Amino acid sequence: MPKLYPQGEAAAAAGKAAFEALLGQPFALDLPGVTGQAGEEISPYTQAPLGITYPQADPDRLFAAARAAIPGWAGAGIDTRLNLLMEGLDRLYREHLFTLVHAVMHTAGQSYNMAYAGSGVNALDRGIEALVYAEQAMRAVAPQARWQRRFGPDEIALDKTYRLVPRGVAVCFTCASFPTWNAWPSMLASLATGNAVIVKPHPASVLPMAITVRVFRALLAEQGFDPDLVTLCLDTLVAPLGKVLIKHEDCAIVDFTGSARFGQWVEANAHPALAFTETSGCNTVVLAGAEDLDAAIRSLATTMCMFSAQMCTSPQNVYLPPWIDTPEGPVARDEVAARLAAAIARLTEDPRRAAMILATVQGAGTLALIEAMRREGQARGRVLLDSRPYAHPDFPDARTATPLLVSLGKEARDLYAEERFGPIGFVIACDSAEDALEQATRDAREQGGITGFLYARDEGFIARAEAAYARAGAQLTINLTGAMPLNFAAAYSDYHVTGLNGAGNAALTTLAFVASRFAVTQSRRPVRDANA
Amino acid sequence: MPKLYPQGEAAAAAGKAAFEALLGQPFALDLPGVTGQAGEEISPYTQAPLGITYPQADPDRLFAAARAAIPGWAGAGIDTRLNLLMEGLDRLYREHLFTLVHAVMHTAGQSYNMAYAGSGVNALDRGIEALVYAEQAMRAVAPQARWQRRFGPDEIALDKTYRLVPRGVAVCFTCASFPTWNAWPSMLASLATGNAVIVKPHPASVLPMAITVRVFRALLAEQGFDPDLVTLCLDTLVAPLGKVLIKHEDCAIVDFTGSARFGQWVEANAHPALAFTETSGCNTVVLAGAEDLDAAIRSLATTMCMFSAQMCTSPQNVYLPPWIDTPEGPVARDEVAARLAAAIARLTEDPRRAAMILATVQGAGTLALIEAMRREGQARGRVLLDSRPYAHPDFPDARTATPLLVSLGKEARDLYAEERFGPIGFVIACDSAEDALEQATRDAREQGGITGFLYARDEGFIARAEAAYARAGAQLTINLTGAMPLNFAAAYSDYHVTGLNGAGNAALTTLAFVASRFAVTQSRRPVRDANA
Repeated sequence: MPKLYPQGEAAAAAGKAAFEALLGQPFALDLPGVTGQAGEEISPYTQAPLGITYPQADPDRLFAAARAAIPGWAGAGIDTRLNLLMEGLDRLYREHLFTLVHAVMHTAGQSYNMAYAGSGVNALDRGIEALVYAEQAMRAVAPQARWQRRFGPDEIALDKTYRLVPRGVAVCFTCASFPTWNAWPSMLASLATGNAVIVKPHPASVLPMAITVRVFRALLAEQGFDPDLVTLCLDTLVAPLGKVLIKHEDCAIVDFTGSARFGQWVEANAHPALAFTETSGCNTVVLAGAEDLDAAIRSLATTMCMFSAQMCTSPQNVYLPPWIDTPEGPVARDEVAARLAAAIARLTEDPRRAAMILATVQGAGTLALIEAMRREGQARGRVLLDSRPYAHPDFPDARTATPLLVSLGKEARDLYAEERFGPIGFVIACDSAEDALEQATRDAREQGGITGFLYARDEGFIARAEAAYARAGAQLTINLTGAMPLNFAAAYSDYHVTGLNGAGNAALTTLAFVASRFAVTQSRRPVRDANA
Repeated sequence: MPKLYPQGEAAAAAGKAAFEALLGQPFALDLPGVTGQAGEEISPYTQAPLGITYPQADPDRLFAAARAAIPGWAGAGIDTRLNLLMEGLDRLYREHLFTLVHAVMHTAGQSYNMAYAGSGVNALDRGIEALVYAEQAMRAVAPQARWQRRFGPDEIALDKTYRLVPRGVAVCFTCASFPTWNAWPSMLASLATGNAVIVKPHPASVLPMAITVRVFRALLAEQGFDPDLVTLCLDTLVAPLGKVLIKHEDCAIVDFTGSARFGQWVEANAHPALAFTETSGCNTVVLAGAEDLDAAIRSLATTMCMFSAQMCTSPQNVYLPPWIDTPEGPVARDEVAARLAAAIARLTEDPRRAAMILATVQGAGTLALIEAMRREGQARGRVLLDSRPYAHPDFPDARTATPLLVSLGKEARDLYAEERFGPIGFVIACDSAEDALEQATRDAREQGGITGFLYARDEGFIARAEAAYARAGAQLTINLTGAMPLNFAAAYSDYHVTGLNGAGNAALTTLAFVASRFAVTQSRRPVRDANA
């Protein structure tokens, strides 16, 4: 919580002032090969341009500079790299956290608290976690070994020396609605293992990563390393550079967070670069029963509202059997659906509370999608709860929308079985609890689910659901109620994305996320001093 | 050594008899979806067909059977899988080693001793090594965790459970000249992490892998697992099935050992399957100086002769400065080249000794390549040592060829800067030691070198060479003389292939070789007994 930050009030005020001082200015960032300035960020809170411009650099020059910077960094050794990167995260925390909070708010549209927690401290935790895995993978390679064996008449003794050699230049794509959470661990995984990183932010959310890049560049230079290990490649909505970067002959690693469509292109076309992707989540809820149905519905409603469901982990589809099992007896599906709609309505009726939980809508396209889904819902099912703008108490021009909740039958799978990014939820009528589980896990598996949520009372059913979600490759949360957001993912104990379905091919964080970012080379020679 | 095997003489005789009993027969192997029988192996020792036929199975049926077999295997747990796979390797060692020796000799064409050591015990070691890495990667994931955190008014306590989920069905391609050495670790890496494996042997070297598949199938069935976890997909030279297997919708992992050309296709086209490749080696030697020039030349000559240089680690290109530095003063390049040719000639003049070291030539195409390289060598350089058949003392019809050694200038790079598979070596005239190092490491980097070999007296030059070979991605052996083959790669301390150049994208064995063969899924739920 922001209030627990050391001298939090002063830090918060200073961060806000620092953010405001950036507005309407060219952002001071030295980069190699600058060819111009650009910037088209629009605050979802004011719907006005931030007016910040950033240097645009020539991709060839960025790659060349990054390549030139690698040898010194790769040669610096594991401890030096890890210490420097920890210091970088520490600086982001100590010196820039509240600036980043406002940068995230006014680009991604998150609430103050989420920008602090989700895009701030939790994302820093994810960065540290990536360093831990990188260290494990690198330390698994002994720096040297003495080896001895008899070959015929000769006792051969060799000293073997191992080097960790980075892959090369990594390109880290960051997304519009959650710019730091995936980016920091990806960047740090590449840097820790000796690579250079070109950050390619979504043009709508540049500032958080521009600040990050500036912090790391300054730190690298200060410590005697080439700052071009970390650069920024800005593109614009009309002239995207993503494919140019990925197909560049010097691109060795791609980390991508963003749309499923481009993510699939990345996975298929990144070769020979390694690709680590996280795209979208068709996230499912099976509500078969609950010990405390009200608590379950409250948790579900809250999580479906949080940041207007603009997280890749937000639940979207609620699969309901005809009757939901409770200690007080079965409750009819329509009643449960109505109670869910009512709970969402209650959470969002007070604008101050709505502002805390819904925050704003990042992109204007989401409003059009809500409109389209409303029309489809009316035509093919029933709108249980309509979406409307709410009046943000602090930002009268904020782009806002309360959730749309639509009731559908299974035949409308073309409508619900993909991520509909934004405050859009579906209640899907299933034949039974088993059918709900089957539909939900099939949609997760085939359409790419990151998270799954289950409420049930029957332990046998729960066990089957755990197995089915494991096969579907979605991370399952069972019977959780209370104040924790259902989709909260903790560093060090929650794996984000499995790689088993279309929602992405990489997890934050496993050994597989780091182990292939470097290679091992060796040299060996006869032991020179046999007594050593 | 075979003589150290327990009751080695009896075992050797029994293995030979077992091999001979297989000849001219259908190989007894139950497989799902058998559609016919085929077999076109020809012994390089007799140049006569082995006359063994194997069941050919429909790929769709193999994939379906493999998929169906996975859940029971994946659910069995790490210890069960590892114990069973260790038992499988143990059976290969205790019950089938000498049968495999003859199977390797009469398909790959290796000598008895190499088939025993390189394709037998050392390959088994590589298999165990893969199991060790698989265990490390899997144990890095805790099976469960209890997690606690305050969210506003609520102290949330969750039990989190993690599952290792295999990717699916792996296809393991094995090569003609070294069928077990890459195959066993690849198979075991996939199986240990819960996947099924379809083995796709080169049609010229089926028997070693058919024996392997039969051993593992019997063991799996005996232990209550579905034997279809390990199957064989036989194709023929005129009707290859490689691309069909790789592009099959159920193909999740490809391990490939074979030609650079098909390997590159695999790397580019395996997606969405993971690809682990080892193709060919343009392997380089820089001979700048030596404390004992005779010893260096002897080692080099021996290793260039070994198995007629039909190993992906065999040195091919010897880069020489005008003068080679020795304690007795500089020795002229032409003299060193002549001494190398003489050393090779000496090693191969006695047919009994030639048989031990050169063994046979696996494929008839290699003889045509020698012929072509001789012509090119005569036209563009100088033939230092011509290739000729030698009379194998035990197999009068053996396909044999002593090494061809050609002297070239740097301008003939199109000739020497790629793997010329077989007993073909080049001596390349360079401007200086530094130039030799630059040429050699450039060829390794650009054309894909697996190994590099250096002889030098200047420690500064050696240090630069270590760095240059690390950048080139080839494993370097420095100043090694004596009875150890220069390209001997020991399990547990020698990494085979770096993944940094075109010789392949994967190393035997690193965490990266195993860590992505499984994913982590999780489920979490509130702690049910707060006192637990």
